[in-house]
Amino acid sequence: MATLCRPAVSVPEHVITMEETLQLARTRHPDHPQLPLALRLIQNTGVRTRHIVQPIEETLRHPGFEIRNKLYESEAKARVPEVVRRALDDAETLTTDIDVIIYVSCTGFMMPSLTAWLINAMDFSSDTRQIPIAQLGCAAGGAAINRAHDFCTAYPEKNALIVACEFCSLCYQPTDLGVGSLLSNGLFGDGVAAAVVRGRGGTGVSLERNGSYLIPKTEEWIMYDVRATGFHFLLDKRVPATMEPLAPALHGLARQHGWNASELDFYIVHAGGPRILDDLSKFLHVPHSAFRFSRATLTEYGNIASAVVLDALRRLFDEGGAGHAARGLLAGFGPGITAEMALGRWQHTT
Amino acid sequence: MATLCRPAVSVPEHVITMEETLQLARTRHPDHPQLPLALRLIQNTGVRTRHIVQPIEETLRHPGFEIRNKLYESEAKARVPEVVRRALDDAETLTTDIDVIIYVSCTGFMMPSLTAWLINAMDFSSDTRQIPIAQLGCAAGGAAINRAHDFCTAYPEKNALIVACEFCSLCYQPTDLGVGSLLSNGLFGDGVAAAVVRGRGGTGVSLERNGSYLIPKTEEWIMYDVRATGFHFLLDKRVPATMEPLAPALHGLARQHGWNASELDFYIVHAGGPRILDDLSKFLHVPHSAFRFSRATLTEYGNIASAVVLDALRRLFDEGGAGHAARGLLAGFGPGITAEMALGRWQHTT
Repeated sequence: MATLCRPAVSVPEHVITMEETLQLARTRHPDHPQLPLALRLIQNTGVRTRHIVQPIEETLRHPGFEIRNKLYESEAKARVPEVVRRALDDAETLTTDIDVIIYVSCTGFMMPSLTAWLINAMDFSSDTRQIPIAQLGCAAGGAAINRAHDFCTAYPEKNALIVACEFCSLCYQPTDLGVGSLLSNGLFGDGVAAAVVRGRGGTGVSLERNGSYLIPKTEEWIMYDVRATGFHFLLDKRVPATMEPLAPALHGLARQHGWNASELDFYIVHAGGPRILDDLSKFLHVPHSAFRFSRATLTEYGNIASAVVLDALRRLFDEGGAGHAARGLLAGFGPGITAEMALGRWQHTT
Repeated sequence: MATLCRPAVSVPEHVITMEETLQLARTRHPDHPQLPLALRLIQNTGVRTRHIVQPIEETLRHPGFEIRNKLYESEAKARVPEVVRRALDDAETLTTDIDVIIYVSCTGFMMPSLTAWLINAMDFSSDTRQIPIAQLGCAAGGAAINRAHDFCTAYPEKNALIVACEFCSLCYQPTDLGVGSLLSNGLFGDGVAAAVVRGRGGTGVSLERNGSYLIPKTEEWIMYDVRATGFHFLLDKRVPATMEPLAPALHGLARQHGWNASELDFYIVHAGGPRILDDLSKFLHVPHSAFRFSRATLTEYGNIASAVVLDALRRLFDEGGAGHAARGLLAGFGPGITAEMALGRWQHTT
């Protein structure tokens, strides 16, 4: 039995508010023919504040892909260890208890991945397995949980550390002027999250089943255009409506497990945007309040990519957790379009 | 029991010989102060031919990271399906039998990864899990085998497809003039490999144990410098000597399994260069001929990164395989510096 323990989360110190975001859009794109639409879309996100690794003036300058990527590396090295330390403490584990590190991040690229540095810098064992995933975007939070679950299913005495490190602000592309880009500029935020999945013991979500689903023929709906200036995020306008084709996959996974996806006790899902949460509410037939954790992440931090699900789960912990054996659904959504879904039960260990 | 079945391998149609490589180095860098050293290092690799996706004249031009990466995508889409089809056939599996695709590739970057396109283009099931890994470099061939093993250990009825797609020639950087770069220009080749790991049945290597090892404080010895011009491969001159600190990890893994790493029946290892194979021979106390599969890959294809271990294993199959229950070691080596190691026994299914 693999238990997903309390996630630790950290967001950077530089804050930008919705009002500042709107004002920036107005001053930077006064003549943009679709400015009113972009402003409306940004307002509709409900994102009140976002936290970013640099002051906004720095963020708006593009110093080139090389410098951006070096910034990604230095910021990751500066911010990840403290979050990992808290996640280990919260799970009552030591670095020496960890058998695999699953590191997910789509907003910078390093080879070797940060896992090698982390093992050296934090004294993890030299035989810690490394699973770095850069290409699942926002779905990678769910993927990390699921691959940790698989690993602990294979080796029930072992433990996994998952880390989601996303500095979306380092992918800001000033020359991208489509409405999807202007919206993204007002939606994404930065954050680092980590959690331990324990093979034995631990308080949190005891993972029971996981599954993946790719909506056919949507691989170009969320993608990176990779250029000399770095990663350019492309967002198709059909993406917000994808919960309708995805909901049957969530229902199907629950049914395989003898559960009803409409009647679970808690829901921890990727908050890609407000429509995702509204539609999930509609297509899963569950009240809006079921998604309060994800909505709070979106409102306070913006879309922090793969870190959203871990932050939303952290909020459930902060609320005191769920009742013993309460049944829940976790899901990340991202490029592919891929859903990484998990079912589990709240477990208290005393 | 997870069985690694016969790998399918394909190398591109454009061939460059050792003599052509040496001649190119001479004509392009006539005044390079270390040209004689570079020529000697290239000759020492023993790489007789390499296969690349474009004619050499095209390869030597750098059209920019964006075009390079688009080429990576179009070449991958043109070349991977046929190899996957053969791997599936050789394992007597259908696309619908595959539960996870582990796609490893460090020579281009796409989000979503090629896995999404493959699932759509080849009619894999929509619930196929995707594990794309871009940041383990040459070690990723071993990592793919090991993560497939873990997955089939967790779910013994399931099957994994692993794909290694490496077009190293698309990372050629004409402005990199260090000796390590000149050597790399004569060492790396292109290739695509795929194999199925079956949870039940199949002929090949029945995987019994795997492990990972990171040599402490070597994370900068093999790395990418990520720039506007793409990935710049940095190779520290200490890398060829890393088998000495790695050999104890190979011995240790074998010992944990009750085996002696010096007395196994077959060895399938990453052929990073000739010194790797010579030193493994020395530190594992096994004859040179034990590495004949890896050496043949190096000689005929060059270092094709994560695809080497699969191609070397393919050569063992071509030789008729090993005897029933013969014991073997597989290992990939790459950035970190990381070794991904596996132990298994040859299994015939009739």
